[in-house]
Amino acid sequence: MEKLTIVKVGGKIVEEPESLKQLLLDFSKISGYKVLVHGGGRSATTIAAKLGIESKMVNGRRITDEEMLKVVTMVYGGLVNKQIVAGLQAIGVNGLGLSGCDLNYMRSVKRPVTDVDYGYVGDVKEVNAGILADLILKGVVPVLAPLTHDNAGNMLNTNADTIASEAAKALSAFFEVTLMYCFEKKGVLFNESDDDSVVSELTPSLFEKYISEGIIQGGMIPKLENSFDALQAGVKQVVITRADLIHTKGGTTVIL
Amino acid sequence: MEKLTIVKVGGKIVEEPESLKQLLLDFSKISGYKVLVHGGGRSATTIAAKLGIESKMVNGRRITDEEMLKVVTMVYGGLVNKQIVAGLQAIGVNGLGLSGCDLNYMRSVKRPVTDVDYGYVGDVKEVNAGILADLILKGVVPVLAPLTHDNAGNMLNTNADTIASEAAKALSAFFEVTLMYCFEKKGVLFNESDDDSVVSELTPSLFEKYISEGIIQGGMIPKLENSFDALQAGVKQVVITRADLIHTKGGTTVIL
Repeated sequence: MEKLTIVKVGGKIVEEPESLKQLLLDFSKISGYKVLVHGGGRSATTIAAKLGIESKMVNGRRITDEEMLKVVTMVYGGLVNKQIVAGLQAIGVNGLGLSGCDLNYMRSVKRPVTDVDYGYVGDVKEVNAGILADLILKGVVPVLAPLTHDNAGNMLNTNADTIASEAAKALSAFFEVTLMYCFEKKGVLFNESDDDSVVSELTPSLFEKYISEGIIQGGMIPKLENSFDALQAGVKQVVITRADLIHTKGGTTVIL
Repeated sequence: MEKLTIVKVGGKIVEEPESLKQLLLDFSKISGYKVLVHGGGRSATTIAAKLGIESKMVNGRRITDEEMLKVVTMVYGGLVNKQIVAGLQAIGVNGLGLSGCDLNYMRSVKRPVTDVDYGYVGDVKEVNAGILADLILKGVVPVLAPLTHDNAGNMLNTNADTIASEAAKALSAFFEVTLMYCFEKKGVLFNESDDDSVVSELTPSLFEKYISEGIIQGGMIPKLENSFDALQAGVKQVVITRADLIHTKGGTTVIL
């Protein structure tokens, strides 16, 4: 199978013109087929505030009421997505911005209300990976906004990490997929205060070992659990690294 | 050649949930291959105002400064475009929202400053119709936002009528194209005060005749001149009609 790299970058790096430009250059250096998944939360919060809409967060997740849904649809699907695609085209990468409604490529359902009502947030139910794979094989680079739709006419706000892992799992039927998550460190670190102490490879047994030793803790645990889920669903490897290292062999590679 | 219908609708009809729903139903009833081109100016003006950005118009055209460019990129490429695409998917039409940067399908240059500086407004230079034609022949319905890019990383605001006519001209290499402009009347009228006095067919000689008789005047003259330009560039026919009549044989058909 052909290789495909799916890179997920957070909002901050794609929301400043200079860091975006560097990211897109680094991204363009990744050889072979690729997909970019982006956030945009900071811009959404800023624009919502200017519109007099308060951003409410619970457990780090945005509560998406009707007005906020309009803001994220504008900001993620329009402003951020089109700036990225235009930037990619300028360096010869044939980007195509997609929200879940486009080509019905990712369908979700509104998250059921339990103790928290997250509002218009989508839990992914179906990825039409075939149509994405066709485009990718033609040299198109999908740029995925963190938005899905319910196939009943409604857009839904969806976490960019989830978009990336769902796309990666579904595309594993067509490609040997490397899923790359960018964050602010070079990778999983043996020592939080030493930025160069990168764990180069992580397997389920090493993961258990490092948790028991207190090396891996906090928010990194669910991130890695999600990575193992993706691997179990067919993704070849997950790489956790810093955005400026995506075109190198740096970072932490998570495998089964 | 296969037939293709390109429908251009203004902002108002796509900016109200009820009228949008009806429009999409009517649009879905058009048989064969189709493309939808939309505006969104009212929403852009409303959201700009809420953001404290004043909308400046000269000769009915928006002056697009840097802040306004962000607004139209959000509103046209995100909010309006995705609401339309999600609405189409809900009724089984496989919409794909596109701004000019997507697939580099429509490239423009920033309009030169003459007596008026329109700001970040694009004059279309190149349409990559082949990539659109491929998608259309696969059953995809492109939904075109009034945005282009300069292939140097910048989005540019572009009149929706222009997007429609440029797409129609370029796609005429692949299809027998009907270009349909929707406005508030049933068509070109013999008598402005009689909504049913529709001119059913208009040729260049009838156009000259009706101008000399004062039947056609004002803003309808440049609209029709643009229609004849499109016909000369290969478009099969231009239809001027009301949005609720797009799936019927109503309206004014402009031919050479």
